[in-house]
Amino acid sequence: MTRLWNDSADFADEMIDGFVAANARYVRRVSGGVVRTTPAPAGRVAVVVGGGSGHYPAFGGLVGAGLADGAAMGNLFASPSTQQIHAVARAAHGGGGVLFSYGNYAGDVLNFDAAQERLRAEGIACETVAVTDDIASASADEIHRRRGIAGDLTVFRSAAGAASAGYDLADVARVARLANDRTRSFGVAFSGCTLPGAPAPLFSVAEGRMAIGLGIHGEPGIDEAEVPTADGLAELLVSRLLAERPDGADGRVVPILNGLGSLKHEEMFVVYRRIAQLLADAGLEVIDPHVGEYCTSFDMAGTSLTLFWLDDELAELWETPVDTPAYRRGSVAPEAAGRAAQPEDAGAADTATAIVPGDTDSQSVARVVVEVVDTVARTVDTHVDELGRMDAIAGDGDHGIGMQRGSHAARAAAHESAAAGAGAATTLARAADAWSDRAGGTSGALWGVILTSVASTLGDTGRPDAAGVAAGVAAATRGVMSYGKAELGDKTMVDALVPFSAQLTTAVAGGATLAEAWRSAASAASAAAAATAALLPRMGRARTHGQHSVGTPDPGAHSLALIVTAVGDVLTHHERTPS
Amino acid sequence: MTRLWNDSADFADEMIDGFVAANARYVRRVSGGVVRTTPAPAGRVAVVVGGGSGHYPAFGGLVGAGLADGAAMGNLFASPSTQQIHAVARAAHGGGGVLFSYGNYAGDVLNFDAAQERLRAEGIACETVAVTDDIASASADEIHRRRGIAGDLTVFRSAAGAASAGYDLADVARVARLANDRTRSFGVAFSGCTLPGAPAPLFSVAEGRMAIGLGIHGEPGIDEAEVPTADGLAELLVSRLLAERPDGADGRVVPILNGLGSLKHEEMFVVYRRIAQLLADAGLEVIDPHVGEYCTSFDMAGTSLTLFWLDDELAELWETPVDTPAYRRGSVAPEAAGRAAQPEDAGAADTATAIVPGDTDSQSVARVVVEVVDTVARTVDTHVDELGRMDAIAGDGDHGIGMQRGSHAARAAAHESAAAGAGAATTLARAADAWSDRAGGTSGALWGVILTSVASTLGDTGRPDAAGVAAGVAAATRGVMSYGKAELGDKTMVDALVPFSAQLTTAVAGGATLAEAWRSAASAASAAAAATAALLPRMGRARTHGQHSVGTPDPGAHSLALIVTAVGDVLTHHERTPS
Repeated sequence: MTRLWNDSADFADEMIDGFVAANARYVRRVSGGVVRTTPAPAGRVAVVVGGGSGHYPAFGGLVGAGLADGAAMGNLFASPSTQQIHAVARAAHGGGGVLFSYGNYAGDVLNFDAAQERLRAEGIACETVAVTDDIASASADEIHRRRGIAGDLTVFRSAAGAASAGYDLADVARVARLANDRTRSFGVAFSGCTLPGAPAPLFSVAEGRMAIGLGIHGEPGIDEAEVPTADGLAELLVSRLLAERPDGADGRVVPILNGLGSLKHEEMFVVYRRIAQLLADAGLEVIDPHVGEYCTSFDMAGTSLTLFWLDDELAELWETPVDTPAYRRGSVAPEAAGRAAQPEDAGAADTATAIVPGDTDSQSVARVVVEVVDTVARTVDTHVDELGRMDAIAGDGDHGIGMQRGSHAARAAAHESAAAGAGAATTLARAADAWSDRAGGTSGALWGVILTSVASTLGDTGRPDAAGVAAGVAAATRGVMSYGKAELGDKTMVDALVPFSAQLTTAVAGGATLAEAWRSAASAASAAAAATAALLPRMGRARTHGQHSVGTPDPGAHSLALIVTAVGDVLTHHERTPS
Repeated sequence: MTRLWNDSADFADEMIDGFVAANARYVRRVSGGVVRTTPAPAGRVAVVVGGGSGHYPAFGGLVGAGLADGAAMGNLFASPSTQQIHAVARAAHGGGGVLFSYGNYAGDVLNFDAAQERLRAEGIACETVAVTDDIASASADEIHRRRGIAGDLTVFRSAAGAASAGYDLADVARVARLANDRTRSFGVAFSGCTLPGAPAPLFSVAEGRMAIGLGIHGEPGIDEAEVPTADGLAELLVSRLLAERPDGADGRVVPILNGLGSLKHEEMFVVYRRIAQLLADAGLEVIDPHVGEYCTSFDMAGTSLTLFWLDDELAELWETPVDTPAYRRGSVAPEAAGRAAQPEDAGAADTATAIVPGDTDSQSVARVVVEVVDTVARTVDTHVDELGRMDAIAGDGDHGIGMQRGSHAARAAAHESAAAGAGAATTLARAADAWSDRAGGTSGALWGVILTSVASTLGDTGRPDAAGVAAGVAAATRGVMSYGKAELGDKTMVDALVPFSAQLTTAVAGGATLAEAWRSAASAASAAAAATAALLPRMGRARTHGQHSVGTPDPGAHSLALIVTAVGDVLTHHERTPS
């Protein structure tokens, strides 16, 4: 369990502060994460990694010579936001383009892809290789759906080795894909992890039992068994991985026995003793074995074995010296800074645009927007534990925390904008941007889309009519479906958003006031969310999590229903006592 | 808790096997532990460290260029045996003498000192600096009684830096003492640790509470408090250490925030964030901060802060590059092997002497010795959990495991010797040597002394008489008191051994047979042990542990009484049905 924090909402930020304070000779803080203190020579491809926090040394601990040039560091177990990734990549980029690599999770895919689009639009070449090493998370026929776990390290190192060797972006991406194709992992867990301030672990395993095929976000495994002996575990891990030996592998293999947080090095060495025997028995040539913590899952007790099957090129790149806060290999000569460090904060510059005041009517609407956003934040606060629990069943338990961080940031931004005289559109758009930036993850990105879409129909002059708002919600619905790639029936937020939008449009067209229409739409959303939520207790073990996982309900529909219901009350109050 | 092992009695050995398998480019296995694969140049002082296992990366993980030349690796939480330390030092020695350094615990002091005496007798110059950084373990007036915890690292590194710079042995020892004088640590724990196969943690802390001033063997702290915030903990640790700033410190300080096993890096970074602020506020210049695991206590959840106050010499030596399995600093160039690795196993050579057969009478007595040793091993097996529990109250819980390893090794050696035709003296002497080598710790060394002393009175020809055995036991008693530096009344094994020996001598002098005398002596030992054991539940929190700690009973008296009672039954049986 987690014991030490100040305010749990500040945990990830304060962790990054302390990490940077302890490792200033390696990394410097930028908006969204960290980049190398001594940047690579100009023109070299920048390798930018990232993901949620709670996986130390992934991802910030892997930034340095011979490994990542920058890491976008999200909140605990939540993808970094699009803004964070964009800002870190800007700071790390040295003219040679950016190779993004990260574990294959829905929120990360969504936000890294969006950041990549922004960077390409700005003229920076980007390629992406999401890591898919976890053989337990999908079948061999659906490798693209597999999660990334400790195999992140081999893909990151291969890409960085290629970048260090002066490969161009297309070639760095080719090497990263090759490394990913030749990396397989399988893991087990003996206990779940507990996020700071959370009342209980994300999942639990009975004493003496073990979950087989764990994820690294507290997702439960695909099977359960008695805890075997150390030798028995070694046999399980090796046999599962040898059964998925990649085509063309010549027998040179790097084994990585990764501790997930609370398993001791001593125990891992006892297990590795047998793994080494089994690999030798299988006629494999073991190169550079790793036993330690490379990608943790907070305080989860568990371990995974990764086998990285080298070929000549990968073997040569594996010799690249590495020197980062948490990982070193070979002998790194101090690297002359090839270009000046960029002290300006690429992310902060984007939001520094001055506010253009709205007219009096729109300023009045902006005050309603502030009240709506206040209500949203309060509603999330009330339900934060419940949302976290729902998410822990199907996913990684970060939904409540992410919604809280996002809605609080939105509230602050809305108050600030309205106080500066902004109209309704600007006030809500600023709130949208703050939400997605601070929340990160899938829900942060989607709520950013929703609020931005509605904002664009409010205007900064005059008062919007009910039909305009309904049109904004319809646009938001299309945006969420396009951005999150979920369809109606996938048991996501979309299942509540579609009936909400349809009922809002219909009721407004039928002559209802905005508040009346909104209330009837909120009822439709609640009914749909209840139908989705009712599936949760019957789910059993979820195999993957997040927006992309058809059949795995996430709590997004429930939080949407809670929020639109609360907002309906605010709108009703304002229709009865107009400002 | 510990989850992965095969046979818990093999845990430490298998851990070392796996550690060496994973780190063959750094270390090679020798009898008693590991030494560097690429030895330092001939003539350089060898720095040999060591201690019990369960503290990874201490001690084997710290062997490599710029740090230790060898590590004696004892059983879990038990000092390595004299034989182990001697063998590792022989293998590591390159002609420049040996600097021993280790944490200041009774069993380590006893065994390292004995190994040092043997080496000096063999013409190898040795010096020793025991680390005493833990300010919670004794007052500033009694610094020599303080324990060594994470401050081991600064003393080891300073000594190794001096050795790498070509300092002679006296100067390496001077630097190590200087570093120890300028190293202070203070720690807290949130949960105890559980040894492999143990039914419960060595101590427990109530949920939401924390033990202040912990040890690294599961010893409870000196005080207890609510778990504070991360910032509150930083303030506690820094304030305690600044109150013990060494005389003459100029303000340059290396902070080391050490995790004890189950505390997460993320939590430590949140704590370090505030530590960095507090050190800056105090006007100190922070150099090379460390946040990580450097000396753990198995799976204990807790942390300690070490401050290492540099002067010019220590600051310069601190720049020495280091490259070991678990710890690296700076840029280490591949070091040319200055002398050939020594493949022969220095320890094994010592015991390879051929057995000279005893005469028929003595071979007959040897069979009784075998039966006695069998009985001892069986008695220890029966009571192993009870002995561990008793030791957990006052010490580190390793007594049962150590007695078990020792008595099993003695049994195997006795059988082997007797089968080879050895007489009684040789059979028991071989058993004694095997016991102390395999058990390690304080009790292993003392049982080695007891059995060796008795063996020397048995002879390899003829049958010993009762007076001879009583004289052997008296010699054993003197040996234990001299070796272990404990007096009657210190609540140790001596409290039972002295009355046992006195009664045996008296009864034999009064005409009793050996078996009769032994039984009455065993009664006296049991009564004395019961008096000692009765103190245990009233002890409260022990401040230190082991043989040297006057006022802290250890279970040695109890195990002695159990053993002599069981042996009395064997002797009685043989008097009634002589072989």
